[in-house]
Amino acid sequence: MSDRQMKWWGWGAEGEYLDVSDKPYLWSFVEQVTGVSENSPKTPLPDVEKIDFPPQTLNRAYLTAIARDLRADQIKTDKMERLIHAYGKSFRDLLRMRLGIVEAAPDCVVYAESESDVEAAVKLAVEHDVVLIPFGGGSNIAGSLEVRGANGRMVVSLDMKRMDKVLEVDQNSFTARIQAGVLGPHMEEQLNAQGVTLGHFPDSFVYSTLGGWLATRSAGMQSDKYGKIEDMVLSLRMVTPIGTIVSRTVPKCSNGIEVNRVCIGSEGILGVITEAVMQVHKLPDCRASYGYLFPTFESGAAAIYECVKCECRPVVTRFSDLGKTALSFAFKRRPKGLKGIMTKAVMAYLKLKRFDQEKVCLMIATFEGDRKMYNYTRKRVNAIYRKHGAVNLGTSPGRAHERTKYDFPHIRDLCLDYHVMADVSETSTVWSNLLPLYYETMKSLREALSAVADPYFLGCHISHTYHTGASLYFTFGCRMQKGREIEQYLFIKKAVQDSFMRCGATLSHHHAVGVEHLPWVAADVSPTGLKAVGALKSGIDPNGVMNPGKIIPSESPLKDWGLSEESIANFRGASR
Amino acid sequence: MSDRQMKWWGWGAEGEYLDVSDKPYLWSFVEQVTGVSENSPKTPLPDVEKIDFPPQTLNRAYLTAIARDLRADQIKTDKMERLIHAYGKSFRDLLRMRLGIVEAAPDCVVYAESESDVEAAVKLAVEHDVVLIPFGGGSNIAGSLEVRGANGRMVVSLDMKRMDKVLEVDQNSFTARIQAGVLGPHMEEQLNAQGVTLGHFPDSFVYSTLGGWLATRSAGMQSDKYGKIEDMVLSLRMVTPIGTIVSRTVPKCSNGIEVNRVCIGSEGILGVITEAVMQVHKLPDCRASYGYLFPTFESGAAAIYECVKCECRPVVTRFSDLGKTALSFAFKRRPKGLKGIMTKAVMAYLKLKRFDQEKVCLMIATFEGDRKMYNYTRKRVNAIYRKHGAVNLGTSPGRAHERTKYDFPHIRDLCLDYHVMADVSETSTVWSNLLPLYYETMKSLREALSAVADPYFLGCHISHTYHTGASLYFTFGCRMQKGREIEQYLFIKKAVQDSFMRCGATLSHHHAVGVEHLPWVAADVSPTGLKAVGALKSGIDPNGVMNPGKIIPSESPLKDWGLSEESIANFRGASR
Repeated sequence: MSDRQMKWWGWGAEGEYLDVSDKPYLWSFVEQVTGVSENSPKTPLPDVEKIDFPPQTLNRAYLTAIARDLRADQIKTDKMERLIHAYGKSFRDLLRMRLGIVEAAPDCVVYAESESDVEAAVKLAVEHDVVLIPFGGGSNIAGSLEVRGANGRMVVSLDMKRMDKVLEVDQNSFTARIQAGVLGPHMEEQLNAQGVTLGHFPDSFVYSTLGGWLATRSAGMQSDKYGKIEDMVLSLRMVTPIGTIVSRTVPKCSNGIEVNRVCIGSEGILGVITEAVMQVHKLPDCRASYGYLFPTFESGAAAIYECVKCECRPVVTRFSDLGKTALSFAFKRRPKGLKGIMTKAVMAYLKLKRFDQEKVCLMIATFEGDRKMYNYTRKRVNAIYRKHGAVNLGTSPGRAHERTKYDFPHIRDLCLDYHVMADVSETSTVWSNLLPLYYETMKSLREALSAVADPYFLGCHISHTYHTGASLYFTFGCRMQKGREIEQYLFIKKAVQDSFMRCGATLSHHHAVGVEHLPWVAADVSPTGLKAVGALKSGIDPNGVMNPGKIIPSESPLKDWGLSEESIANFRGASR
Repeated sequence: MSDRQMKWWGWGAEGEYLDVSDKPYLWSFVEQVTGVSENSPKTPLPDVEKIDFPPQTLNRAYLTAIARDLRADQIKTDKMERLIHAYGKSFRDLLRMRLGIVEAAPDCVVYAESESDVEAAVKLAVEHDVVLIPFGGGSNIAGSLEVRGANGRMVVSLDMKRMDKVLEVDQNSFTARIQAGVLGPHMEEQLNAQGVTLGHFPDSFVYSTLGGWLATRSAGMQSDKYGKIEDMVLSLRMVTPIGTIVSRTVPKCSNGIEVNRVCIGSEGILGVITEAVMQVHKLPDCRASYGYLFPTFESGAAAIYECVKCECRPVVTRFSDLGKTALSFAFKRRPKGLKGIMTKAVMAYLKLKRFDQEKVCLMIATFEGDRKMYNYTRKRVNAIYRKHGAVNLGTSPGRAHERTKYDFPHIRDLCLDYHVMADVSETSTVWSNLLPLYYETMKSLREALSAVADPYFLGCHISHTYHTGASLYFTFGCRMQKGREIEQYLFIKKAVQDSFMRCGATLSHHHAVGVEHLPWVAADVSPTGLKAVGALKSGIDPNGVMNPGKIIPSESPLKDWGLSEESIANFRGASR
């Protein structure tokens, strides 16, 4: 049994790396926005031997009991397993691994292969007072996977990746019953073999699981058509300390408070989702991604909004501001032959149309459906974009986007090789607040970044659109200050999250609360809303064995988060 | 302040009645399916003086305290107010009123005019151990409004209808902040004045409120386009015994378990929803409803399914089987002049096409949108329907549907005038189970109906469609047996609900649990799912003052429901 794990210190499988050799514009861009050049000294990769590892707590009674229910190769206690399951892949996680900081790690990893394995793991955790942390692909970037509040108890990471089957496809109903531990590509393979797709493609797709998507309320790139993950669920099964929640496979119902929704977004604090019946779609007959250039961010935003008004939207609308557009162009491959000529022709055309090449913003729009729907949507959207001043670049940027769309997490590793920070924060808001939120958050980020770095990178893109609003996805990066990496990072992260809250947006559109967003959750869902979540936690997990310390903040969330008032004052002082 | 209440014993305002004088085919149909003729003796309307009224429990301390916060005309304790708020409008409710049975009634009615009124009512209920039942339009048909589990405590019905304002429309974001107590028509008036619509039109529209829709997970006739009510919510406010839950107005988020969804469907057991920010849509440029006849139920179902496959659906798809089609035709007005000639022409055409007029099934399909979307959808759906053998009857049946679409609740009163039972049960399932569920439930209903009546009426229509399935809406009626009305009704109701559960469907697609569906809720959401709901209840309403006895069943739900094993055996015996 091969358990497809990511490398413990970075994104992707061992040996997997981002090939930048075919990207001739990249390094000059990186140098411009971070001051780091291709020839700057590289930080050595972390050495597992040098990791200062926390001591292991082994609950012998639990281990004996679980060994009765599971095979030996399902229970692991070695250092590498502990390391792989210690963190998710947030920037702070990657940074700590690079710095050799492992504050806590699970003491044991249990690989579930069936729902009854999960039942055993949960039941025994309650019986023996052992902490259980469900673990899917390990791609979470909100700290949902790390050890908190163990208080001397043994901690078990329950790895779900062996539960990786599409159990049943009902092609007439467009539903599929899928095990929670399946990774994105393996799931789509199984679905595609039966002519259907889930339509859920988050940036983390290659290394994230259905269970993880459900537990964190994930959104994929094509959510404009397919919805967020919570919109695709017909029924699910979740093993909890007080029994297994099982809902019925129906499209919609009215049976009191919806129990599916109690499980979705619960980030492992109530139980372990083992499988779900999901809505699927037949594979589209036609599909293509196009690139467009807009003269300004505002004109592109207006075009997107007009598509919403006409109720005629692409399945992907990904619109970058200046900064993000520049980043996209930096990742271009060298155009060859006809393509090179085409590029030059486009540039000439843009000049003719008085586009300011320093100010253009890139839109990627994907269309799909049967021939009629595809044509209807593409023509109508094209006309709307044109009206707002767009230049259609054809399918070449679209193909580039398709080829590189899962690359972003790899870039963070490349940056860390050169001691450069790179991270994201995303949110959503209603249309009337979209540009105000964008301006205000950009301002806050500029202030924070300039207080800790010079130069820096900052950009944003609109990643998901809805009838009532859209999400904004901010990306930032800069050279790190040696010895102050984490506080520098948190200083920036706080600026962006504070801005979201101040502007009436949400702490995250699709990245979960975990521990990274605990300081903002009370403001987001209201103190009484948090008490409702707390009521579920006390009622369903009275012994507090399920993933403690997530979603529900402590009394001093900002302090626990790790940024002291002194650090804030220091950075602010330095910027004056 | 005029509080628009329905008459205590039936549907609609005092004096409102269904005019059947222009429906020449109705009585011969009624006689055929129930054996009751126009000249049968009418049951006299119930007399308020003859109602055996339960004694009033007045908690003086509560009344004194609430009188400090509210005006005198917001607090009522008279018999008529108690009667109006005693029940919803389920068939059992109407029947009991006709029979003069009021088992329990609230002791006091409080009219909230602001969120602070609601806060006062909830806070004082906790302080003085008084039961609080939120009351919107009073249209609920699942028993969600009746007094249960008061255990000697005073019961207050909290009437929300004075909180009836659309507070704010954000036309750029397509959102509206709306008070929970507003009735459907008054809400749409306020929204339409600003060029938008909520798009939520349940059968109860005229007498139901936003708060009621949210508390019961209501679905409107146009849900195929606009979604169920839970799909339209951006944020809400709910006053609970432990504080007020407030969520943020964003299209989508990932902030842990979604607190909106903890409130939606809670049927008053956790608190009182005071307002919500809802997604709205601009009023459509084009709109029309068409009628079609299909040769069989199966051919129409196949046509609907093909529309789903093509992702091209009308905004309303309402497809009746034989029984429901006959009922629709019985409600036709006498065709005059050109229309009469047209009707004859259609009949001749149907004969030519070898349609069996005794077997045709009626589809009502509504199209709307801007000109382009409207044309695209209508043409494509038309072609699909034609392919499945449909005859397009034009807009005349559509107009008839639009004119009469809120009539059904009135028909029950007309039936009761003649001691005839008429009720509905509805559910939803996935496509592959739609026809099996239909056949099986029709069989169960036929058996149950024939055990208690001869003749009887039975019909079904597809009322809402989704990508993965549809809802089935069963209607049944028969003459009641004097003295055994309620057990006769429950015998039939049990047959249909048991069939839903046996066939893997849900207890209700959009009518809530209340008390009427308590015997099936554990099978529907699973015992552990119920415990999760119970955890919310204990955590948020530890004193049990909020609408006790709803959603969460007792130890003996079927017994509490009111149907004894003896009754079942008797009816079964009689049918042999």
